[in-house]
Amino acid sequence: MPEKIAHIAIAVKDLKAAKELFSKLLGAEAYHEEDVARQRVRTAMFRVGQVTIELLEGTDEGSPVTKFIAKRGEGIHHISLEVRDIEAEIARLRNEGFAFVHDRPEQGANNSRVAFLHPRSTNGVLIEISEHAQPRGR
Amino acid sequence: MPEKIAHIAIAVKDLKAAKELFSKLLGAEAYHEEDVARQRVRTAMFRVGQVTIELLEGTDEGSPVTKFIAKRGEGIHHISLEVRDIEAEIARLRNEGFAFVHDRPEQGANNSRVAFLHPRSTNGVLIEISEHAQPRGR
Repeated sequence: MPEKIAHIAIAVKDLKAAKELFSKLLGAEAYHEEDVARQRVRTAMFRVGQVTIELLEGTDEGSPVTKFIAKRGEGIHHISLEVRDIEAEIARLRNEGFAFVHDRPEQGANNSRVAFLHPRSTNGVLIEISEHAQPRGR
Repeated sequence: MPEKIAHIAIAVKDLKAAKELFSKLLGAEAYHEEDVARQRVRTAMFRVGQVTIELLEGTDEGSPVTKFIAKRGEGIHHISLEVRDIEAEIARLRNEGFAFVHDRPEQGANNSRVAFLHPRSTNGVLIEISEHAQPRGR
């Protein structure tokens, strides 16, 4: 079962400009930056309470984030629900009738393992479930 | 300064169907339902860790949520940042160059007072700041 919102990911065109804007909005600096080659994104992370706000910029034209922005504009890309055991949660959700984009967990940022639910299962919201090697914010 | 994510609001066409779906996804029932006449929405709320997932259905054609769905489809409508003193936070953010949709706080769900930042200020993300009479989830 999801234990908390791990992060809210926001697709942006210009990570540097968005980082400045969100540091003003949230009154805090980004605590982590990373290139996640596997997901073709570059990210900057802010913390608000238990939750990470993750800004995402695509690293090339083929990045899912670049494609998302071309289609829908900048904005919230996905939310991530943190679970303890990602395999068990995938099995639970499949059993409830949810569809996944990939068959098995992939490598995410911060050494996490992640799996995306198909948005046709979830009222148009792109939802990721994630398992973190080192629990964050507990 | 925002202290936590108060909620993530998701615009849905059919609150009853979405409630069923999210109770399966989150493995929990809605803990609160409310008609917020002032915002022309009907809402069902789920808790995940510190954060509320708030499903929103417009109550009529003129509801901002009904208009949002007509334009963009179902999906995440806004995120709400909880602050202790909404007037002080509006002043801080105006000073940083952010624009607000309304001049002063309005009545929100659960006895909160809320103010929306204009999405042109915030990379296409509709962001609300909210002050809660009774702090939630602390």
